[in-house]
Amino acid sequence: MNEYKAFRVELADKVAQVVIDRPEKINAMSADFWAEIVDVFRWVDDTDEVRVVVLSGAGPHFSSGIDLQLLAQVGAQLGKDVGRNAEQLRRKILSLQASFNAVDHCRKPVIAAIQGYCLGGAIDLISACDMRYCSADARFSIKEIDMGMAADVGTLQRLPRIIGDGMMRELAYTGRTLDGAEAQAIGLVNRVYENPEALMEGVNELARQIAEKSPLAIRGTKEMIRYMRDHRVDDGLEYIATWNAAMLQAADLRVAVAAHMARQKPDFAD
Amino acid sequence: MNEYKAFRVELADKVAQVVIDRPEKINAMSADFWAEIVDVFRWVDDTDEVRVVVLSGAGPHFSSGIDLQLLAQVGAQLGKDVGRNAEQLRRKILSLQASFNAVDHCRKPVIAAIQGYCLGGAIDLISACDMRYCSADARFSIKEIDMGMAADVGTLQRLPRIIGDGMMRELAYTGRTLDGAEAQAIGLVNRVYENPEALMEGVNELARQIAEKSPLAIRGTKEMIRYMRDHRVDDGLEYIATWNAAMLQAADLRVAVAAHMARQKPDFAD
Amino acid sequence: MNEYKAFRVELADKVAQVVIDRPEKINAMSADFWAEIVDVFRWVDDTDEVRVVVLSGAGPHFSSGIDLQLLAQVGAQLGKDVGRNAEQLRRKILSLQASFNAVDHCRKPVIAAIQGYCLGGAIDLISACDMRYCSADARFSIKEIDMGMAADVGTLQRLPRIIGDGMMRELAYTGRTLDGAEAQAIGLVNRVYENPEALMEGVNELARQIAEKSPLAIRGTKEMIRYMRDHRVDDGLEYIATWNAAMLQAADLRVAVAAHMARQKPDFAD
Amino acid sequence: MNEYKAFRVELADKVAQVVIDRPEKINAMSADFWAEIVDVFRWVDDTDEVRVVVLSGAGPHFSSGIDLQLLAQVGAQLGKDVGRNAEQLRRKILSLQASFNAVDHCRKPVIAAIQGYCLGGAIDLISACDMRYCSADARFSIKEIDMGMAADVGTLQRLPRIIGDGMMRELAYTGRTLDGAEAQAIGLVNRVYENPEALMEGVNELARQIAEKSPLAIRGTKEMIRYMRDHRVDDGLEYIATWNAAMLQAADLRVAVAAHMARQKPDFAD
Amino acid sequence: MNEYKAFRVELADKVAQVVIDRPEKINAMSADFWAEIVDVFRWVDDTDEVRVVVLSGAGPHFSSGIDLQLLAQVGAQLGKDVGRNAEQLRRKILSLQASFNAVDHCRKPVIAAIQGYCLGGAIDLISACDMRYCSADARFSIKEIDMGMAADVGTLQRLPRIIGDGMMRELAYTGRTLDGAEAQAIGLVNRVYENPEALMEGVNELARQIAEKSPLAIRGTKEMIRYMRDHRVDDGLEYIATWNAAMLQAADLRVAVAAHMARQKPDFAD
Amino acid sequence: MNEYKAFRVELADKVAQVVIDRPEKINAMSADFWAEIVDVFRWVDDTDEVRVVVLSGAGPHFSSGIDLQLLAQVGAQLGKDVGRNAEQLRRKILSLQASFNAVDHCRKPVIAAIQGYCLGGAIDLISACDMRYCSADARFSIKEIDMGMAADVGTLQRLPRIIGDGMMRELAYTGRTLDGAEAQAIGLVNRVYENPEALMEGVNELARQIAEKSPLAIRGTKEMIRYMRDHRVDDGLEYIATWNAAMLQAADLRVAVAAHMARQKPDFAD
Repeated sequence: MNEYKAFRVELADKVAQVVIDRPEKINAMSADFWAEIVDVFRWVDDTDEVRVVVLSGAGPHFSSGIDLQLLAQVGAQLGKDVGRNAEQLRRKILSLQASFNAVDHCRKPVIAAIQGYCLGGAIDLISACDMRYCSADARFSIKEIDMGMAADVGTLQRLPRIIGDGMMRELAYTGRTLDGAEAQAIGLVNRVYENPEALMEGVNELARQIAEKSPLAIRGTKEMIRYMRDHRVDDGLEYIATWNAAMLQAADLRVAVAAHMARQKPDFAD
Repeated sequence: MNEYKAFRVELADKVAQVVIDRPEKINAMSADFWAEIVDVFRWVDDTDEVRVVVLSGAGPHFSSGIDLQLLAQVGAQLGKDVGRNAEQLRRKILSLQASFNAVDHCRKPVIAAIQGYCLGGAIDLISACDMRYCSADARFSIKEIDMGMAADVGTLQRLPRIIGDGMMRELAYTGRTLDGAEAQAIGLVNRVYENPEALMEGVNELARQIAEKSPLAIRGTKEMIRYMRDHRVDDGLEYIATWNAAMLQAADLRVAVAAHMARQKPDFAD
Repeated sequence: MNEYKAFRVELADKVAQVVIDRPEKINAMSADFWAEIVDVFRWVDDTDEVRVVVLSGAGPHFSSGIDLQLLAQVGAQLGKDVGRNAEQLRRKILSLQASFNAVDHCRKPVIAAIQGYCLGGAIDLISACDMRYCSADARFSIKEIDMGMAADVGTLQRLPRIIGDGMMRELAYTGRTLDGAEAQAIGLVNRVYENPEALMEGVNELARQIAEKSPLAIRGTKEMIRYMRDHRVDDGLEYIATWNAAMLQAADLRVAVAAHMARQKPDFAD
Repeated sequence: MNEYKAFRVELADKVAQVVIDRPEKINAMSADFWAEIVDVFRWVDDTDEVRVVVLSGAGPHFSSGIDLQLLAQVGAQLGKDVGRNAEQLRRKILSLQASFNAVDHCRKPVIAAIQGYCLGGAIDLISACDMRYCSADARFSIKEIDMGMAADVGTLQRLPRIIGDGMMRELAYTGRTLDGAEAQAIGLVNRVYENPEALMEGVNELARQIAEKSPLAIRGTKEMIRYMRDHRVDDGLEYIATWNAAMLQAADLRVAVAAHMARQKPDFAD
Repeated sequence: MNEYKAFRVELADKVAQVVIDRPEKINAMSADFWAEIVDVFRWVDDTDEVRVVVLSGAGPHFSSGIDLQLLAQVGAQLGKDVGRNAEQLRRKILSLQASFNAVDHCRKPVIAAIQGYCLGGAIDLISACDMRYCSADARFSIKEIDMGMAADVGTLQRLPRIIGDGMMRELAYTGRTLDGAEAQAIGLVNRVYENPEALMEGVNELARQIAEKSPLAIRGTKEMIRYMRDHRVDDGLEYIATWNAAMLQAADLRVAVAAHMARQKPDFAD
Repeated sequence: MNEYKAFRVELADKVAQVVIDRPEKINAMSADFWAEIVDVFRWVDDTDEVRVVVLSGAGPHFSSGIDLQLLAQVGAQLGKDVGRNAEQLRRKILSLQASFNAVDHCRKPVIAAIQGYCLGGAIDLISACDMRYCSADARFSIKEIDMGMAADVGTLQRLPRIIGDGMMRELAYTGRTLDGAEAQAIGLVNRVYENPEALMEGVNELARQIAEKSPLAIRGTKEMIRYMRDHRVDDGLEYIATWNAAMLQAADLRVAVAAHMARQKPDFAD
């Protein structure tokens, strides 16, 4: 676990706390942020002790989205030839997307805990998490439309699988602000807590529950759900059969059955 | 903007009003309707000044669906050979589908405003729109099942992406009538208004908001959401990166940022 | 209609009642169950008189999922070579999946009526049905995670199309128990009835309604919705056009129109 | 059958001769060409008497590809805003592609007869035909690379399905010229004839043979092969089963069997 | 290994000889044939000792395709209602396709040895095999077009993946007869032998070579190649990684390495 | 350009020479090889001056495939739990695959020049290149089958798109050795040269030709052909239209046209 400029990362009880830590900038996503998030999630993936991640923002807000300075820098680097600019922009966007793919592809569940502002790029980010929970004061907005651009780091790709198609379009076309209650009503978050403290308590309790399950079973489950977002039912059935051909030979099934018989809590290896 | 027999079309404040205009026939979809809707939406697509479309029905009802006379005509044209009939029917259905594809593929957002009856083919039609809003008196029914046939101009293809799979099947198998409140509960419409007047006011206000956004950004957003209905997340990410490689070199981003800095409303070119 | 060990099957008024019939074992899914369900649904498919299926469980519970004895047997048959075990397990899983594919692929609508426990494999089963209804006392849980394994007979593949992605992951990672009301809120069931009696009455009324429709139209409708779970909108449109090229030459359309004109109930052939 | 500026079209013995007819310009593809080809193939599709199309070029060459004047015009219409230019170019390219999609989607087989130059856009065109035949003097080149651009009206999309992947890339990266013999060796053409006269004789004989088959069977066959270019084997099997459900009730099967028994040539209706 | 009416089946040296055995009828595919082939290949799949299958025809010809009597029977069972006929025909076709899917999905390699006539349905059959070899006297023809129908049991679906797209269409539209040499030139067969005796000798030698390889490795290889016919490269890479996660823990890798070191032939368990 | 242990890398005339440089080990693929190849191709991608890559092997052979010591190490790291081993193996395989994906995804064309042995993993490698050329002494073999395993770093996924399906299976099941002439006959290589010197001369001449083309046009062309390996024709058409929307505004088209008019060689910027 390294030191980071844009994040604070801690590990306790098999749960990694990943905190966006630039509260004085409303946790705006700086160049450091985009680079470090890949390292953070590589560490999560490679550290057997980490079983679940809670992703949150320091201070009263989750994040105001991409840092406008970063956008300005990208613009400043463009040259005169439209074609070469296009290639450079395309690669830059793919590189920013890769930062959030690192969250989406992480083998361990990632839970987003959201209070206050969650704007623009922050919606792209939470769309790449497994589950989202918020406090009543949360404010969500697909802000990119007001910047004169189509969101390009994941919101338009992942959110339609999470909320209804009709409401998706209304939010993306208008940039309208949503509060916690409406976010739950349309399926954007699983639950609204009264305030940020209750939110962190609730989310951490959930994280601990998941951390007690067989880590192999959790990873298989996550991989299968992620796979189904983009594949056919018949392909998914064949994939889990192939996956479990090895995994059902793991110790975890026996450990679970034995604990079940003994009416005890199972204790799974990392 | 031409004269139409089945529609009334107007353009004001960058919003096109497309009104199905056969109230004496409960706006049943005649041969004129199916032909003209393609022209209407080609005009929408080709007219830079149009930024948003509001689709509604004249009189107390949105539409009762396909005109039974048209169905009868199709039947009357069939000959003796089952195979040649089949080819003729297949081409006829594909041609009717193309009429609603024109709505689905339109580059500008299409908002359906629904009051009273919305039956059979009318459900196919609103499924091809971006968003749906209704008044409390709206009545929805997948009527085709009572005609002894499976719906074949889009309901069974597009509606499952909009409402839940379980309720989708109940409605398609039974043809049961839904009112506005239930339509909202299952995600068929985004919002229910007290009466048709409030509906038109609400929908027009929404249309105006969208019309003020960057038209390039709105089209990109629509294209991406439409694309995700049928494609994988990784393909979608690559597509928006390629799209924005050109679009981020447009003036709109600069206009938006400048307006944001000056705390003014941005003014985007058509 | 044969005699079965794990099921009781009856046919009346064109509705087949398929009852899991091992109440003393909470309808746990035994070896007989997995073999017989294929036969039951082949009979359903092949019997023209059957138009709709109601699937329920005898006694106070729907089903507790896979019989743990069966799991133990599978484990006992494994040998020393990991590779050959893997192939054997893979084929066993594919074979169990095939049992529920028989439900999913059945040409006639299958309605699940759920009371009491609906755990583990029972969730896989109801995910393969067309629609789900429950009584208020129903208790749902994706129990596999507590057995130290990823669910592998359909829940992770089919349920994400039915309920929201965010809640899907919460339920799959935690195995948390859901009651009837929450099941309806997230779209898992279409409706909650006060008690098991009301449930059966409601479900049978629904089944009778569907049984009165044109069986060809119902089958076409089911096939199209099933197809759209895994295919693109444009492919779906082409498929229904090809399908209806034959089906619109059937008698059912004429029967329906004639009945409609005469304001009578149509009477469709099996 | 209309009069065209860029084409000469004739119909005899159920075979339509479609000739690109600007020999003085080496049959370069002008604005007329791109517009008229859609009309020509709509006529082909709608005219029952046409069963097969032979596509050829007047004079010593098949075609030199897109008219450079047309390219210059497109460039001249661009404005100052990169984003709006991009949208305009994208729509222009899609519209040019649509011209060749009309060939690809045509229900009747299209046979390309190629002599002399077949360059740039002409490769895009013949890639959209069913089969290609040439005389020994034919010269093929994916010329777009020498214009500083990636081919965008079909060569890069359709040709990889026709010739090997490795040679595809060599030809597309170098623009190297291929003669008839090598074209046959890599599968680009089915057969090389000694000279243009032999070519036309051979191709017309082939066209007549196809024209004698059941037109329904030919169309089904074409649709299925086209479908398989982009779909899975299991989807293809389901599609032909649905298609033939109607088509096997056509008269053609009976006509063919009867002729077979009587050892006569069958005579199929249009 | 059962007794069959349409087949003769033998097992020696881990190679199963499956012989279509109705030489007096040119091995025409009767009702027995279609039913028994499923049983034969289920036995192949379930019998560990069988590692490779050689499929051939008794007498001077491989097979003349579907038995015309069977076609006549299907026709005779049709009723008056076009829609119900369509459903019946569709299910019949799907059922015939399933017979050849049993060959395609068989876990063990299937080698077709072809002499004399290989017509119509026989082309569908060999397209479902892994590899094809013939003697110089072989005669191939996609005969269905001369029956006035589009081939519907696999030729149009599987053959385009095996031979070039251009020649595929020529053969399917014309039903033209191909000899062994041309069959090899277009990739339909891997090799042509001088006469049927040399063919059987060559094919059996090949079968013995394959039978000596690790059966787990052969099955994995076949599954992967089959998978790639219908899937993306990235999906294929993920699939083999998941597959080999178990299979590289098998004994076979160690056995092979040890034999390699000792410069001996490895001996793999069934 | 760094120093590498397993490679020698040079850049001249815009062509990068990437040479596997362990001739004393027949260029076996060591741990260094797998790690460094990713760096090499990242450098290729990021260095504007590099326009084409020639990949070859030092000494008399191209490469004997994966280093058996590396395989042994992977085996030695496995523990007791089959499930955890499986996860570790799966990730290891995915990581090895990523090394060759770096070649496949490289934006610049990669030409493989092959002499002598090209075995096992070396086939996986050249399958990820754009084009393959060899000298007459080349010897190809899908050696993995003799190691008791299914090839898992790309051969089974990419080669079926390059050579015919039937021959693909023969080679993969038998591990049979192919010489240069047969490799060309089945499309594995584009051309066979008399000896290694002629090979390098021919390949470098080809590389120089490609290096003179517009680099933007080459990259667009490569991306499109790569895309078509896994996507539908209609998706591919939409993708190139979106891509060229920006690229046709580049200078290269004007440079090419001007040079064409002046009958000079165009000079494109990097």
